[in-house]
Amino acid sequence: MSLLETIRTPKDLRRLSHEQLDALAGEIRAFLIEHVSRTGGHLGPNLGVVELTIAIHRVFDSPKDAIVWDTGHQTYVHKLLTGRQDFSRLRKRGGLSGYPDRAESVHDIVESSHASSSLSWADGISRAFQVTGETDRHVVAVVGDGALTGGMTWEALNNISDDNNRRLVIVVNDNGRSYAPTIGGMARYLNDVRTRRTYRDMQKGSKQLFDRFGAPGRAIYRGTRGAMHGFLARFVNNERMYSNLDIKYLGPIDGHDEAAVENALRQARNYELPVLVHVITQKGRGYAPARADEADRFHAVGVIDPETGAPLAAATPARDWADVFGADLVGLAERDTRIIGVTAAMLRPVGLAPLAERFPRRVIDVGIAEQHAVTSAAGLAFGGLHPVFAVYATFMGRALDQVLMDVALHRAGVTFVLHRAGITGPDGPSHHGMWDLAMLQIVPGMRIASPRDGATLAEELAEAIAVDDAPTVLRLPKGTVPVDIPALERLDDGVDVLARGEGADVLVVAIGVMAAQGLEVARLLAEQGIDVTVVDPRWAVPIAPSLIDLAARHRLVVTIEDGVRVGGVGTRLRQDMRAAGVDTALNEVGLPDAFLPHAERGEILAESGLAADRIAADIQGQLAGTKLPAARPAPTRTRTRT
Amino acid sequence: MSLLETIRTPKDLRRLSHEQLDALAGEIRAFLIEHVSRTGGHLGPNLGVVELTIAIHRVFDSPKDAIVWDTGHQTYVHKLLTGRQDFSRLRKRGGLSGYPDRAESVHDIVESSHASSSLSWADGISRAFQVTGETDRHVVAVVGDGALTGGMTWEALNNISDDNNRRLVIVVNDNGRSYAPTIGGMARYLNDVRTRRTYRDMQKGSKQLFDRFGAPGRAIYRGTRGAMHGFLARFVNNERMYSNLDIKYLGPIDGHDEAAVENALRQARNYELPVLVHVITQKGRGYAPARADEADRFHAVGVIDPETGAPLAAATPARDWADVFGADLVGLAERDTRIIGVTAAMLRPVGLAPLAERFPRRVIDVGIAEQHAVTSAAGLAFGGLHPVFAVYATFMGRALDQVLMDVALHRAGVTFVLHRAGITGPDGPSHHGMWDLAMLQIVPGMRIASPRDGATLAEELAEAIAVDDAPTVLRLPKGTVPVDIPALERLDDGVDVLARGEGADVLVVAIGVMAAQGLEVARLLAEQGIDVTVVDPRWAVPIAPSLIDLAARHRLVVTIEDGVRVGGVGTRLRQDMRAAGVDTALNEVGLPDAFLPHAERGEILAESGLAADRIAADIQGQLAGTKLPAARPAPTRTRTRT
Repeated sequence: MSLLETIRTPKDLRRLSHEQLDALAGEIRAFLIEHVSRTGGHLGPNLGVVELTIAIHRVFDSPKDAIVWDTGHQTYVHKLLTGRQDFSRLRKRGGLSGYPDRAESVHDIVESSHASSSLSWADGISRAFQVTGETDRHVVAVVGDGALTGGMTWEALNNISDDNNRRLVIVVNDNGRSYAPTIGGMARYLNDVRTRRTYRDMQKGSKQLFDRFGAPGRAIYRGTRGAMHGFLARFVNNERMYSNLDIKYLGPIDGHDEAAVENALRQARNYELPVLVHVITQKGRGYAPARADEADRFHAVGVIDPETGAPLAAATPARDWADVFGADLVGLAERDTRIIGVTAAMLRPVGLAPLAERFPRRVIDVGIAEQHAVTSAAGLAFGGLHPVFAVYATFMGRALDQVLMDVALHRAGVTFVLHRAGITGPDGPSHHGMWDLAMLQIVPGMRIASPRDGATLAEELAEAIAVDDAPTVLRLPKGTVPVDIPALERLDDGVDVLARGEGADVLVVAIGVMAAQGLEVARLLAEQGIDVTVVDPRWAVPIAPSLIDLAARHRLVVTIEDGVRVGGVGTRLRQDMRAAGVDTALNEVGLPDAFLPHAERGEILAESGLAADRIAADIQGQLAGTKLPAARPAPTRTRTRT
Repeated sequence: MSLLETIRTPKDLRRLSHEQLDALAGEIRAFLIEHVSRTGGHLGPNLGVVELTIAIHRVFDSPKDAIVWDTGHQTYVHKLLTGRQDFSRLRKRGGLSGYPDRAESVHDIVESSHASSSLSWADGISRAFQVTGETDRHVVAVVGDGALTGGMTWEALNNISDDNNRRLVIVVNDNGRSYAPTIGGMARYLNDVRTRRTYRDMQKGSKQLFDRFGAPGRAIYRGTRGAMHGFLARFVNNERMYSNLDIKYLGPIDGHDEAAVENALRQARNYELPVLVHVITQKGRGYAPARADEADRFHAVGVIDPETGAPLAAATPARDWADVFGADLVGLAERDTRIIGVTAAMLRPVGLAPLAERFPRRVIDVGIAEQHAVTSAAGLAFGGLHPVFAVYATFMGRALDQVLMDVALHRAGVTFVLHRAGITGPDGPSHHGMWDLAMLQIVPGMRIASPRDGATLAEELAEAIAVDDAPTVLRLPKGTVPVDIPALERLDDGVDVLARGEGADVLVVAIGVMAAQGLEVARLLAEQGIDVTVVDPRWAVPIAPSLIDLAARHRLVVTIEDGVRVGGVGTRLRQDMRAAGVDTALNEVGLPDAFLPHAERGEILAESGLAADRIAADIQGQLAGTKLPAARPAPTRTRTRT
């Protein structure tokens, strides 16, 4: 039986010797490499926090003490130590989540994985413990150096500093890279600390030094708190990380020296005020392919060869939406010097690496700072440029106010390229891009396009960048770009007709990649003798006038969008129809008003009512009913242009 | 002719002597007190920045240099110095905006007035100047100490620090209070700086000291940049305000010593990198009633007596929504110890002052930090409390991600009380609460109520606080609470019937204070023989089943909401109706998809199609048409409980 198998709860860690803990750390790394290489998942971050996680669970008493993990993808080790060692279906339907999940364990508190939130959670929890008198409960927040670039952490630290009669330990897990090297003045500062001679010197002796503390050291500390603090300050490099906030600081600590981390945490635990413990770790620690990779491709992996780290996927790799976007953008930027890319610490995943390689000065990485990304883009536009902010759709909720008040109110020509819009799959509820359509369509003047394939992506990106007096959104799904779906014709106002029914039964308005669903619905209904016209409006917002005309000539309109149905663009089409006196029945097909779990994208779409057979069956049922009036005579406004 | 009248552009300031500038400052203060006491407006902040604004316009060359004002309510002096001296219709329809407005002047850049955004704007503009080669253009951001508690400023400073080959001057206008005393570690730090002996000593000689610089000092600086920096550092108290970001710091400067401010700005202007100039000012400077008022009631005033500062309003002041909410909350908090109030630096305006007086430990002021407010509320709820976050509706866009990912995903029992929801009036586009309904109704599990009067506010607040497994929203308008509008009956699911038609023509679903509009519509249509039932659903989200039943029994349904029509709750009712097979025609009446200007609330509602006569006329027109089918036979599910 391995040591790991003997760990059922964090309490089981307490009986292990330091030699056994070292062995356990080795077992955990082997486990992670073996299992995550099979299922895919966040490998690099978890390899970096093995000793840190062990130390936290030895020093603190979860769940009585509350442990909050920022960006929960660093919790695989935590799962292994809290009774969850079946990783066979990690991130698959019914299997373990890739993030903390309250339904899995009482040791999990924060499920979402939007960065920089942990200090606010910790602030709230520790204040509640104060108010309810549970003053013996500690709160531990584990936050990465990258997450410290997010403004929420500043807001939280300002509050944590303000009222510090609390047992709150902030562990900064500093690996110098969030997805890529962490940027900004904060990163430069941390790098200084890491590389300074005093730190290097100190590290040599850190294990021996900290071993002098422990129970006797703690006793001394309790007796002579002030003196002990002076004592620590001489040995531990007491930095002014947030000098203006006056938060107590311990570190930097070698995060792979379990005993050193443990001793620092025990010191921090004994303060009755917030303490920041600065721990230096290596992302991908103990896995040669990850350590050797500067591009940080082991942050999250698919299925890989555990020996080499090489992806085990199709020999001819399909092109990702981000790749196609990245190449298209470089082409546009060659001709248009106003174009400048903006990313929030995700240069590669959002497809901006090619632009950065071609024009290093024309991509700005702002850190994990979506608010700043959006507002500084408004400033860039005011200064005469055309910023393209590429970001995951799920993170746009971080900056809705800035889109409204800084970009749209000022009619700034900013293009937002939302990646992983719609259902993303294995990352679960906090990473589906479900709300972007509904939240962004309420922004006055906003124009939203949703490419259905590579050809329309190229076209619509060029069209977006040509707009200089309003914001635009391009919405791209996760995964590979399908083969082009040619239009039968393009109407005057840019609407693409993908399939044309002979009669006037059903008009399907398919948003973006839902075009495939629309065409399949048409095929299924044709078998039943039901006549379907399928269009892709290309620009979903504002509503193209030809959609109203087409709607007037059909008995039923069905919109299909892979965003939430509530408040979605289907509701906008219906409002515009009614304003034009077109009262054709309209069904909005979209995602339900709920948080959706992790599973394969197709599984979730099917369970959400977005599978073609389900949509077709619904339409058939409605047409069979008696409620729908016959189509009205066709107005003749729509003109085609080829 | 006064000196002020001779200032048509900022250039006119250059010919004035320091004695004349002192006289001008006096004239400006007299002007502000005289005019703002007549119209109402932001008096205190503008009295504090008179010398600072003069100095900025003497040192920098607007509009070639870009001046960005954080929270634009501090720009009255800027307006006076840039050719806008007709304050007779300030904040009234067609008159000057209370904020910067690009349509008014080329000297205005950022129109919105959501705090903490200026540094991001300045970062973007200065980067654009770098890219376009306009390296002789400076960017100046003027930001208050309160705004520095907002996370956006941290994100921006991290970026400004990262790439500092730019001409960017950050002026921290530090008056120690945003609306009320600024809170948090940041505020404590600034207070230290302000009160430290070195600063007080330095101030005595600051004017003489700075006079030594100027042109000769600049020449020395250019020749021996390093040495000059050392020289400055010895005289000017070079603080480590953002020590980890390593941004150059000048200050603190007495903000009412125009020559001192001017000299500091000239020094800052000569650096070719970002510089932070820390200026100490007094809010309400030169106006005794404002200086004497600890509650900061002169931050924004209505019409007042210019001598005494006393409000010139009705003798028996009507009760504000915030007052009624505040009193109700104290009542609930007496009985329920889990209740804890949260405010983002607006204790009094959002009605939490009574709770803070009664239970000082049960209100948390987090600073201008809506993101942190929301996520820490999730933490408070996890710790066993019931947080009530009271905030202006317009600021909720700052924290939508946190509502989704931290509160709703975790089913946290958090009550959001949104003040100034709907059209607010004189503050213009950035302060109308237009988008909250549309943006919050897409949050899974969210429940939204909109009280129509004091009685329903009390009821719905109690109902909201009783919900512990989901977030709730209470949406309150600006202004005074109307007299109670009693219901004829309350249906089983809580829907209030306010007027009952005898026939089955029209069902009006009025959200919150739109009840008054609904009743007036009914009265107007009754004169035309059209029969109207008016209901207030009380809880607008989720949709009450009885609304569907009622809708089925009418020929036309009209929803009235003072939020944007696009994506509004009207669209949700229609989706639920259609899902139930109820296809009664439905018109959503709501605000247009546009930014609306400043004017009186009634004026804007009327122009937006929300006046009762307009709604009634539309309904009449539709009923006269032939499109609407007769009502179907009534299902009998609806039950009454009185």
